[in-house]
Amino acid sequence: MSNDKKAIEKITSMDEDFGQWYTDIVKQAGLVDYTSVKGCVVICPYGYAIWEHIQRILDSRFKETGHENVYLPLFIPEGLLNREKDHVEGFAPEVAWVTQGGAEELTERLCVRPTSETLFCEHYKNAVQSWRDLPKLYNQWCNVVRWEKTTRPFLRSREFLWQEGHTLHATPEEATEETLRILDLYADFCEKVLAMPVIRGRKTDSDKFAGAEATYAIEAMMHDGKALQAGTSHYFGDGFARAFDITYTTKENKLAHPYQTSWGVTTRLIGAIIMTHGDDRGLNLPPMVAPVQAVIIPVAQHKEGVLDACKALEEKLKSVCRVKLDASDNSPGWKFAEHEMRGVPVRIELGPRDIENGECVLGIRYSGEKRTVKSDELERILPALLDEITQGMFDKALENRTNRTYSVKTLDEIDAVLKEKDAFFYIPWCEDPACENAIKEQTGVGSRCIPFDQHAQETDVCPVCGKKAKHIVLFAKAY
Amino acid sequence: MSNDKKAIEKITSMDEDFGQWYTDIVKQAGLVDYTSVKGCVVICPYGYAIWEHIQRILDSRFKETGHENVYLPLFIPEGLLNREKDHVEGFAPEVAWVTQGGAEELTERLCVRPTSETLFCEHYKNAVQSWRDLPKLYNQWCNVVRWEKTTRPFLRSREFLWQEGHTLHATPEEATEETLRILDLYADFCEKVLAMPVIRGRKTDSDKFAGAEATYAIEAMMHDGKALQAGTSHYFGDGFARAFDITYTTKENKLAHPYQTSWGVTTRLIGAIIMTHGDDRGLNLPPMVAPVQAVIIPVAQHKEGVLDACKALEEKLKSVCRVKLDASDNSPGWKFAEHEMRGVPVRIELGPRDIENGECVLGIRYSGEKRTVKSDELERILPALLDEITQGMFDKALENRTNRTYSVKTLDEIDAVLKEKDAFFYIPWCEDPACENAIKEQTGVGSRCIPFDQHAQETDVCPVCGKKAKHIVLFAKAY
Repeated sequence: MSNDKKAIEKITSMDEDFGQWYTDIVKQAGLVDYTSVKGCVVICPYGYAIWEHIQRILDSRFKETGHENVYLPLFIPEGLLNREKDHVEGFAPEVAWVTQGGAEELTERLCVRPTSETLFCEHYKNAVQSWRDLPKLYNQWCNVVRWEKTTRPFLRSREFLWQEGHTLHATPEEATEETLRILDLYADFCEKVLAMPVIRGRKTDSDKFAGAEATYAIEAMMHDGKALQAGTSHYFGDGFARAFDITYTTKENKLAHPYQTSWGVTTRLIGAIIMTHGDDRGLNLPPMVAPVQAVIIPVAQHKEGVLDACKALEEKLKSVCRVKLDASDNSPGWKFAEHEMRGVPVRIELGPRDIENGECVLGIRYSGEKRTVKSDELERILPALLDEITQGMFDKALENRTNRTYSVKTLDEIDAVLKEKDAFFYIPWCEDPACENAIKEQTGVGSRCIPFDQHAQETDVCPVCGKKAKHIVLFAKAY
Repeated sequence: MSNDKKAIEKITSMDEDFGQWYTDIVKQAGLVDYTSVKGCVVICPYGYAIWEHIQRILDSRFKETGHENVYLPLFIPEGLLNREKDHVEGFAPEVAWVTQGGAEELTERLCVRPTSETLFCEHYKNAVQSWRDLPKLYNQWCNVVRWEKTTRPFLRSREFLWQEGHTLHATPEEATEETLRILDLYADFCEKVLAMPVIRGRKTDSDKFAGAEATYAIEAMMHDGKALQAGTSHYFGDGFARAFDITYTTKENKLAHPYQTSWGVTTRLIGAIIMTHGDDRGLNLPPMVAPVQAVIIPVAQHKEGVLDACKALEEKLKSVCRVKLDASDNSPGWKFAEHEMRGVPVRIELGPRDIENGECVLGIRYSGEKRTVKSDELERILPALLDEITQGMFDKALENRTNRTYSVKTLDEIDAVLKEKDAFFYIPWCEDPACENAIKEQTGVGSRCIPFDQHAQETDVCPVCGKKAKHIVLFAKAY
């Protein structure tokens, strides 16, 4: 019996210490292991399998929208990184430098890519000559390095995995359209696949990507009321093209600079899944990215026929979902707790009496609900149930966000809420960075984005300077 | 008309200069672009798509044999790399060192992984406690860096992409079995998927992986008669486990060291494909990894109904192969040459008269053969034709190898052959490294492996010392 509780006892309660709860889950659910390389972790099989599902689904969506995968070097010569002024200022303070190769001291330092705009520009300069070569719609899946001081598995690490799209277009309109198309693709992916509601918006100027004309982002609320930036899409205008001298001949036989975008999501999404859906019993995975969607747990597995029936059921269900039979010699109670902790969306219990009745009992991870169903209907029921669970998890996360969202007119209102809980605040803003900064200084919540969905009123004024508001801005504490 | 020859004129003839021929192909077929990072290239969409097919097929085979994917850090602290003596001696001279992170000088240098045995060992030490935790069958797809002096796209580059499997087992027998299972998997993949015949064997001691007890390899012959090592699989015994203090409790409740393997293939396989199958008309891709398996080329596409018929055919064939219609405004002749150069296995010509007759003309890239077939039978014919082409390409490559393979008794025989062409030589060997070295010094061919398929005779003697031979060894010049 002591075994039965082992899995759960290791997880700190969310209310007690959300940070420790998070750390317990990533370790106990087998998502990561720590290493002697500061700020870098091992992504273990269960965590990596989640990433593989994210990759597979996103990659096919990128390809459906005409994007092609490429691979560019890990290293950026210092001189190349320095070509675009804003970009290097933004990234140089947080890069790792290679100074020695084999026995030789390098004459020019190489930076380990923190992002690859400069390398893509160098390549595009070769690859684009004529309007016929446009658009270029490239993407790469790779690792990047940013020398962060404070690190946390998935959320902020010195090395992380991501995809970075880099595209070139003939006109600003086309490039802007691409930037927003990808933002929508990310939002749809987060909401429909990860069951995570997001707010789409534009970053204020103080929060733009280094070198971008405009940065768009999707912001999600974690269970504790803090915000997490789940993906970004940047519009560069022709700034990089000018800095890197990328030109092409137009249909009218003139020389012109193309317009550029870049966009990315990272292994951070795994952190977002944990903090959006997890609870005190552990991880809670959205079915479409869960390595195991349904686990079969035999009850009284020593009794004749039980294991055979379970195996037969596993075989039958393989064609409709990712199913796994746990035939280990642990007790059913231990298995219940273990697979709950690992966030398996559906548990299928099958014991002697169930077999006799042609039934089994389904346990639904996110809601705790139990349902008794006919075993021979499972093939038909399961796919629909997984969809229902995705929608249910989305609704639950949206409810949490709704309950923690406030439209405020004064900073005092923010303080009053923050005394009780973290939350999202919609605040009218005059567009002066000084006021944006004052809000952060005085309340602790920072601007996340200017949501596309605006509901500003004529009478709205900036709570700091009292001037007429130009936008309603989303403010929150953030990961 | 001048356009029609453009694609072909850029490729140097193989006989004239095989090295330049190779360089022309990787560039002209759109596989790579050069960068300002010495020894590193851009893998362009067409090249990367080949790699994606290689990855997809291998990855599913690894998973079918019980392996799980993980991701370990890019960086290895110097102290960790130094833990296994032979290993560090082998790799330290060719690694890139990170010495600075952000503004801080690092107190311990970090090496950019040239391979990840040391990191896997560190993780396994945490992850393995009991015999129940064995075997561990892990793999990762990632980039690695080796500071090579002379580089060449795909064949030898400072950064390359690969997969590295790392497994732990309870007994030497199980670990050896795994090492050989993977070597067989690689050989089968090369022969059945890449249509590239390989010779399986064990490396001589002078050519073992740094830290391995035994290294096994598959060796392929390139079109010019040189050898290319296409994949390796290493058996480590418990050497790394001892160096890294990895122990587990056996069923009998004793403490023991597990036995280890590692194995990998790299983007080098793309170079192997080029040099095994390519010809003076360009690239020649094995169907299973070709980004486009069949290209439809309209003849007289301005005539009514031609483009519509081609589009309808493309739609119809999408379910049976990777098909693409080239409806660009280039001439059919230019398109023929272009898609031949890019190595598309099958060309489908469709013009007004073909449409009238319900026929189309197939052009088979590797053999140059043409076949007229009924259009409505294409869905049935194509998959079988792609298999036939794979077999035909394999047979052709095997014929080249057979024609360039010699069993010799003396070094003079080797010299005589080498005056005319490069070749594979089977040479009896006494097992003394001095004799192995003497053969290399005196003839220029080095030992590649001790083939599993041995045909030594009682009377065979080492051509250097005259002592009785212990093995027949494969010697060749190598990439």
